Amino acid sequence: MRAARLHAYTDDMSEALSLDDVDRPELDRPDGVLVEVEGAGWCQTDNHIVEGMWTDYVEQNLPMTLGHENAGIVREVGEDVTLVSEGDPVICHPHVTCGVCRPCRMGEDMHCENAEFPGLSRDGGFAEYLATAERSVIPLPEGVDPTDIAPHADAGITAYHAVKKAVRQLNPGDTAVVVGVGGLGHIGLQCLDAMSATDIVALDPKEAARDLAGDLGAGHTVDPTNEDVAARIDDLTDGTGAHQVLDFVGSDSTTSMAPDIVAGTGDFHVIGYGGHVHEPSQALVNGEFSFKGTLVGKYAELQELMALVDRGDVELRTTRYGLDEINDVAEQLEHGEIEGRAVLTP
Amino acid sequence: MRAARLHAYTDDMSEALSLDDVDRPELDRPDGVLVEVEGAGWCQTDNHIVEGMWTDYVEQNLPMTLGHENAGIVREVGEDVTLVSEGDPVICHPHVTCGVCRPCRMGEDMHCENAEFPGLSRDGGFAEYLATAERSVIPLPEGVDPTDIAPHADAGITAYHAVKKAVRQLNPGDTAVVVGVGGLGHIGLQCLDAMSATDIVALDPKEAARDLAGDLGAGHTVDPTNEDVAARIDDLTDGTGAHQVLDFVGSDSTTSMAPDIVAGTGDFHVIGYGGHVHEPSQALVNGEFSFKGTLVGKYAELQELMALVDRGDVELRTTRYGLDEINDVAEQLEHGEIEGRAVLTP
Amino acid sequence: MRAARLHAYTDDMSEALSLDDVDRPELDRPDGVLVEVEGAGWCQTDNHIVEGMWTDYVEQNLPMTLGHENAGIVREVGEDVTLVSEGDPVICHPHVTCGVCRPCRMGEDMHCENAEFPGLSRDGGFAEYLATAERSVIPLPEGVDPTDIAPHADAGITAYHAVKKAVRQLNPGDTAVVVGVGGLGHIGLQCLDAMSATDIVALDPKEAARDLAGDLGAGHTVDPTNEDVAARIDDLTDGTGAHQVLDFVGSDSTTSMAPDIVAGTGDFHVIGYGGHVHEPSQALVNGEFSFKGTLVGKYAELQELMALVDRGDVELRTTRYGLDEINDVAEQLEHGEIEGRAVLTP
Amino acid sequence: MRAARLHAYTDDMSEALSLDDVDRPELDRPDGVLVEVEGAGWCQTDNHIVEGMWTDYVEQNLPMTLGHENAGIVREVGEDVTLVSEGDPVICHPHVTCGVCRPCRMGEDMHCENAEFPGLSRDGGFAEYLATAERSVIPLPEGVDPTDIAPHADAGITAYHAVKKAVRQLNPGDTAVVVGVGGLGHIGLQCLDAMSATDIVALDPKEAARDLAGDLGAGHTVDPTNEDVAARIDDLTDGTGAHQVLDFVGSDSTTSMAPDIVAGTGDFHVIGYGGHVHEPSQALVNGEFSFKGTLVGKYAELQELMALVDRGDVELRTTRYGLDEINDVAEQLEHGEIEGRAVLTP
Repeated sequence: MRAARLHAYTDDMSEALSLDDVDRPELDRPDGVLVEVEGAGWCQTDNHIVEGMWTDYVEQNLPMTLGHENAGIVREVGEDVTLVSEGDPVICHPHVTCGVCRPCRMGEDMHCENAEFPGLSRDGGFAEYLATAERSVIPLPEGVDPTDIAPHADAGITAYHAVKKAVRQLNPGDTAVVVGVGGLGHIGLQCLDAMSATDIVALDPKEAARDLAGDLGAGHTVDPTNEDVAARIDDLTDGTGAHQVLDFVGSDSTTSMAPDIVAGTGDFHVIGYGGHVHEPSQALVNGEFSFKGTLVGKYAELQELMALVDRGDVELRTTRYGLDEINDVAEQLEHGEIEGRAVLTP
Repeated sequence: MRAARLHAYTDDMSEALSLDDVDRPELDRPDGVLVEVEGAGWCQTDNHIVEGMWTDYVEQNLPMTLGHENAGIVREVGEDVTLVSEGDPVICHPHVTCGVCRPCRMGEDMHCENAEFPGLSRDGGFAEYLATAERSVIPLPEGVDPTDIAPHADAGITAYHAVKKAVRQLNPGDTAVVVGVGGLGHIGLQCLDAMSATDIVALDPKEAARDLAGDLGAGHTVDPTNEDVAARIDDLTDGTGAHQVLDFVGSDSTTSMAPDIVAGTGDFHVIGYGGHVHEPSQALVNGEFSFKGTLVGKYAELQELMALVDRGDVELRTTRYGLDEINDVAEQLEHGEIEGRAVLTP
Repeated sequence: MRAARLHAYTDDMSEALSLDDVDRPELDRPDGVLVEVEGAGWCQTDNHIVEGMWTDYVEQNLPMTLGHENAGIVREVGEDVTLVSEGDPVICHPHVTCGVCRPCRMGEDMHCENAEFPGLSRDGGFAEYLATAERSVIPLPEGVDPTDIAPHADAGITAYHAVKKAVRQLNPGDTAVVVGVGGLGHIGLQCLDAMSATDIVALDPKEAARDLAGDLGAGHTVDPTNEDVAARIDDLTDGTGAHQVLDFVGSDSTTSMAPDIVAGTGDFHVIGYGGHVHEPSQALVNGEFSFKGTLVGKYAELQELMALVDRGDVELRTTRYGLDEINDVAEQLEHGEIEGRAVLTP
Repeated sequence: MRAARLHAYTDDMSEALSLDDVDRPELDRPDGVLVEVEGAGWCQTDNHIVEGMWTDYVEQNLPMTLGHENAGIVREVGEDVTLVSEGDPVICHPHVTCGVCRPCRMGEDMHCENAEFPGLSRDGGFAEYLATAERSVIPLPEGVDPTDIAPHADAGITAYHAVKKAVRQLNPGDTAVVVGVGGLGHIGLQCLDAMSATDIVALDPKEAARDLAGDLGAGHTVDPTNEDVAARIDDLTDGTGAHQVLDFVGSDSTTSMAPDIVAGTGDFHVIGYGGHVHEPSQALVNGEFSFKGTLVGKYAELQELMALVDRGDVELRTTRYGLDEINDVAEQLEHGEIEGRAVLTP
């Protein structure tokens, strides 16, 4: 089968992956599930993987097929599988977990001690077929097309996971700030709007992104390149600050806003990455706010996100590309030229 | 009356404050309370105030009497006061709050929108008398001496406040790390031990501090100058990491341990300050941990801490000094030569 | 001034209260606020007070002016009041609290140890003027008419308070059941819809109430007199049960549904009262569910509810009546003939 | 092998079970684990099963081997098992769960949709061997004897589960009441003492139980047959009431204390069962307290309890009996004559 593989780390996205002809994966476990990939989202993290930015955190053996935002049709199941059958459309949670370690037993499957992460630690879904397991697939609600919602497998639950933490702390009348209305941000904003009665302020340097934010539920939008963000937030919150900030960018310039815009006891969620968090300890103490790192969401949260999709509360902006266009997609995202999310259709 | 006042910011602790003769404060509000100070703790924050490190955060008019860890005897009360009467021994919460703004109404009195902070924003307790208010005094349990427990007014509740947040996340079998077993740390460690069934690891470069930690409930101690902290924590937690870390130091070198020692979904509480928090956003994302800034605790938490004192669960290590020794105390703390907490007895 | 007063407990609502001419209340405290009542909601609790059902719980000295759902215009303020001024439109939280006791300090002002409850423990708002205090008034958002929103002072925050507890436990895809779409229920339903992405099922024997529920956000409605409630909930939740049930009725027949309709670890909120909770202990154990008693909400929650009103998320169905119609209103409510909420305009 | 089996429901405990010779169970699943039972606790629930009290809640096919508090040595494992090996001492969580349904994925394995409950829904551990599965066994800490701690498999985690919920709501200075210091209560009391800094009051009509309570950490004990419980609690809490009550009895007379002894916003945990919860809805509303049903704890909680055992924080009072004494044990427990917990050694 065809698969888009990383052979060597590079900063040149025009030659990020190469299309190889490889063997179709075999199921080698009783709870295995083989999925024919209908859609696989390209993620900022894919750029970071190509650049070698994950080698310090995860062991990677190249060549490796990337692609961790996958959805498709079940084509084969192991003998112990009861949850799905051949022909079922599914979305694939990006973590393949053991179900036995303590984090798994507590429902914290993203912290599984024996996990694989297809597309990051082993072959992923930029290919015709993906090998995964029963604990990593969720049957789709009726009428939901796998290609349309593939990006929820990672962009979606990452945004949802952060929003769910934020929402627990938000009351009507409070303000939440969404930093960056791109692939993750436009999902997070919709989740926030559906799950709370909070006033939402969206920040993005691009006008189209701000317009989209307004359409999706933001009461106010701010252009951080031309406006004084702290003054705007101060004004919109009567000087209190924003109770929760969701930073889908994670650059030096976005994280540095924290002391000036987060309300006392509030949280600044670091979801995007690339830059640094850098503040005097005193700033955190005086403002009594937190920098909360946020990883991908849990399996149960992907179920909840599928419920939001089923309710019509979250709409994904996607564009479809053939697998042979994958390096173009990588380059366009690098230059901020992808609106919403790019989905490869192998 | 005599009062130890700051006339000019300086890095030279030998001339930090001068002993002035000033007017005894007058009660000017119906809920006012005048306290004769029996004990006033000297705090690392006092050094920071002398150095001018708080001018960016709080408006200060010099000369100003420092001293925000106060306890004593009520000598006069305003006409509306019902909680205490003349002659009552009390500990003084360091915030004088309005009771009307939204944070006050939610119990978050440290975030009162109309607060004063004696010893930081106006005259404090390094003096014979302190003017405070009904909402800032707590009657002492029988048999508790004000001078003995004065440092709980700030060091105590700051430590308690952080520990209370941490304890809500800790289960038996989890590990908590206490960084720095000084004025705050030795209180925090005892609170942690009393309020949870967690395995406690204490870090301190000083042997005496590590010995004290062992006496107060730490199961393990680590010398960060001579041991590989990350390896020790890894070993003590079977590779999981510590679920909660309480950093009572807040220097560059202590905060930089976070990615290596905090367990997934865990928290690194920034309580001490002086250095910076500096990490790649990716470290917070990959480890899914938080840097949680922690300010002084709430009034209700000082009540809870007094209950711990009354139960015999928390013992303060203090040394008493006369008000004329105050600059010696400032210098000694600057050089890390104070064991436990210094209490001035005006 | 005119005031509708209870002289003797009775089951005959046609002679519940009598219109007396009484002295206008005087402000006798520095934080006192005198409000000219523009609207005062009649509540099921008023019927219960008239019947003598609160004498076991609260000391009452008759004659007493009833009315605990009040809103109006500030006409006089005590010398310490800063929050409001003469002429300000306000809604009155029904509890007059001390701000000093431990529950007040924790934000739990409904459990104030020194509280008064106008209209229940002393003279209330079925009169031209009401004496209350600074800690019990909330300035209205611009454009909000006091008469329109008076019922939020008790019906509103009681419903909101329960919903807020429920929402913290609800995830997208979960089901919440609203039992009784009357004065409280129709508010609760809207709060639930605004603050969560939960599937809402509303139960009411009256068709008009079910229609209203559908208009206000319920995805499904059930007629408990003609349908098998447990079977419907089972069917709508794939056998899981409802994660949160909000019982705004509290009769024997509504509370007895709990074991059959609440999901494991779920809650059955007892908000309405009149009947009993009666189950084998084993039912609670086996289903691991709770009966949660819910009192009126906190001051901070009434602020949050006003934010919902300001956002347009909660619309009150009210009908206005003159003070001389008050016993008619009492009788109509007794017979379930009031749609939404009756508001007296003294 | 020998097994103690229920052939017919009866109220006569002298003929509760009969010792049958049955086939040793076979492992029929790849994650199966066969345990040689070293100890199996007899539980009040066993009496209730014998009486037929669970037939409304669980499908039971008689004859059935009872015994759901099991610990022993692993003798055989299925091919997929990695957590344990032959020869490992283990405690058996009483639920055999699927790991795939939504409750399992959220860590709520007691609410698994596909669970078996050995000793309640199919053959249990009053036998030489028990068939269970990888997700239901926990390796014991070094030096812990399976026979000694078998009752933790159900009595222990049930008590722990309730205590863990209670502890999250308890602050230093608060009061918790333990009702019934028997098999569960004496464990719960120790967990409470280890995991919080709460004042504990224990109620038991038996003097020996009250003495035990005092030894295990209760600050006060009350004899409910000869003392006015409400007055004592009122006195011990300055009129506030107990913030958390843990009722390990669950009879009509214990649950009826709730409105008189639970503080506002507090909880009355229904752990024992046999009687009813019966109160006016108004009592729950006025006191704003909850009746919280509590089932057996989760797998992760049994891990936490084993950590408490390993720390020496919880000591079980047990007496060992041979399998042929099982009906004597049943009778003695029925008459309240078992101190601590009876453990059968097959």
